[in-house]
Formats: sequence, structure tokens, C-alpha cells
Amino acid sequence: MRAGLHGETAMQRPATEDHCGELRLRALPRIPEVRPGDDLCALLLAALQRAGETLRDGDVIVLAQKIVSKAEGRLVALDTVQPSPHARHLALECDKDPRLIELVLQESREVLRCRRGVIVVEHRLGFVMANAGIDQSNVRQDGGEAALLLPLDPDASCATLRTRLRSATGADVAVLIIDSHGRAWRNGTVGVAIGVAGMQALHDL
Amino acid sequence: MRAGLHGETAMQRPATEDHCGELRLRALPRIPEVRPGDDLCALLLAALQRAGETLRDGDVIVLAQKIVSKAEGRLVALDTVQPSPHARHLALECDKDPRLIELVLQESREVLRCRRGVIVVEHRLGFVMANAGIDQSNVRQDGGEAALLLPLDPDASCATLRTRLRSATGADVAVLIIDSHGRAWRNGTVGVAIGVAGMQALHDL
Repeated sequence: MRAGLHGETAMQRPATEDHCGELRLRALPRIPEVRPGDDLCALLLAALQRAGETLRDGDVIVLAQKIVSKAEGRLVALDTVQPSPHARHLALECDKDPRLIELVLQESREVLRCRRGVIVVEHRLGFVMANAGIDQSNVRQDGGEAALLLPLDPDASCATLRTRLRSATGADVAVLIIDSHGRAWRNGTVGVAIGVAGMQALHDL
Repeated sequence: MRAGLHGETAMQRPATEDHCGELRLRALPRIPEVRPGDDLCALLLAALQRAGETLRDGDVIVLAQKIVSKAEGRLVALDTVQPSPHARHLALECDKDPRLIELVLQESREVLRCRRGVIVVEHRLGFVMANAGIDQSNVRQDGGEAALLLPLDPDASCATLRTRLRSATGADVAVLIIDSHGRAWRNGTVGVAIGVAGMQALHDL
């Protein structure tokens, strides 16, 4: 079972000789707008109960990065950011807000590309991504401009949530945090796990 | 409903206020080894019947590239390939079989990268991909080495199958052909649609 704001629940049924194996993705309805300090575990449990769903061993909970970041207080009001000279210089190069670029730099190990409209970095978590994964859609704070950073430690966030869900329900579930990543040379984005607990991130087939 | 060799069937149930929206991926069991000239529509219909499944409007059939290529006779015995001097030169650079590189060049518009163990091209279909999407796993022919090329026109293959499935079942389904693509700077692969009929390839959210 998967759950999250854009959340899904998944149930696997193994294939038998003549029956279809099945994977179910289910979206949990009516998760409220998440705010700093909110308890995601409590929100999930309430949503599961409303939906009449029960967690079972082997279910996978998938959370959008956005709600994890919001709950963990990773929303930064741009008014509070002082861009460094380096950030101002890069901001001119890529024609972006210097305060956003300052946050990008703070979140990154290295700037890989900077061109008009584009800044690609290696994030401190190891992901190569545009804007260090910083999100400015649907993230205003008190009416002002804001930016939402990735969780500090997505794997740890998953592990904590997994432990709490187990305590609350008895179910041994896996937890993923996913983010939308662009793909080099392609249109569109794919959902990529940026945090995981309780299952392997990669399977060797 | 989705179906394919590694096939899945998907049924969508919209979310209501208190119920989970749901997407089901279902694998069709016992699709046989596909050979050149096989009728994929007939194979799918037989597998659906065995599984007790019925296609419905809005179902999505997902086929692995490999079975489409095999059915369309895109398997090439390497013994039959004469590498050009250019292919021989590139094969030395990337340390691969010159006959494979000849096929890669025939399938490509442009070579973008060529290093030891790596050749990345722009495929004639527009995809930027390693080895022009040519697959050498599980594709032997009469015991000899063989290579499996992408379908000639994946969108057309999807459209034809869609029309035939509609004639046979009355259901208005979408058809996708998917392939496993690597991702720059990342481990793992993602399933990417290389052909589509009956639905939009990209959704603007």
C-alpha cells in the first residue's frame, strides 16, 4: 500500500500460472495542505482510516517530496536570504533570482552547468538536478515568495516514518519519498525515489 | 488494462471524496516466446482469454519493445552484418563488436559519445540512447549471436494494434510500447514509452 499527498497505495498479488500478477497504486484522498511541524504519520493514519484502508506487510508508502519538505520546515522565505557575490554572479548568468541561486549553492556540492534559464548542480545528497531540487510552485509563505528545499536526510525521514507506522499499525511497510526529475535530452519528468526505507532502491535483474 | 510479455494491465478507478483513486498494473501470464512474424494481437487476445480478462474502454496495453521487435522481424544475425570502415574505427574506440557498431550506425542520425564501453547516439526515431537501443540479451538466433533493433515505426505499430484490438473486442484502448532507458548521472533504468497510440505521450500538469 502506498500513501501520500499525491500518494498512492500499492498491493501486490503474485501471478499464478493463469492469473495476472497485479500491482495496485492507490491515492489517499483528502490529505490536507501540509504545514511546518505537521506530523505526517498522523496525517497518513487519519487518511487511511477515512478511506477504510488498512496497512499490510509488504505495502509501500510513497510520499511526495513536497509534503515531507513542508512538514520538516524546509520552506524558506526568499526575503530572508542574503545572496553572496558568487550567487549574484551566477544569477546574472542564468537569469534567475539571486536569492534562489544562493539557496541552490547552499544545497549543492558543485555547479555543473549555468546558462540562461538553467542551473544544474550536484546536490549535497548526490543527485544531479536542476535548481538543486528547489521548488517554487505552490509554496508561498505568508503571501511572499518562498522556496522549498529537499528534506535534510530523506532516507532518515523514511526510516523514521516506517518505524512509527509499524508501531501504530503493526505492519512492516516500506516508505519512499519521490520527486519529479527531468531527463537529459527528453521532455517530461519521471518520479525518482530520493529516499527509501524497507526495500532496495535498485534491483539487479 | 495493460498487457504484454512483461505486460501489465491497468484499470483506473477515479478517487471520490473518501475513497482511494486506483491504478492497477496487471501482468498477462504465459505469453510464449515471440518469433518473427508472430501476430501480437492474436497472442494478446489468447492470453487475455486464458486469464479471464476482458478489455474495456480506457484500458492501456503496454508492450515490451522486445516482443514487438521480435514479432516484426528486427532480429539480425551478426554473421550477416558487414561493418564499414567507420564502424570498425568506432568499434575500436568503444571496444565493441564492429558488427554491432555497424547496426548502431545504420539506426542512428548522429554519434554523440564514443568511449571505451560506451556509444551514445541520436536514434533515427529521435531518442538519445546507448547502442541505438539495440538489445543483445535473450536474443540468439539459431544459436548464433544476434542483435534486436527497435521497431521500424513504434507509433505505427501501436496504432495498428489498437485498431485490431478494437475490431476484435470493441474496446477503445490505448497502446504503448515501452523500453528500458538509462538515465544520465544515475544508476538504474526507467521504462520509457517509445511508441504510443490512443493517449497523449506527455501531459501538461
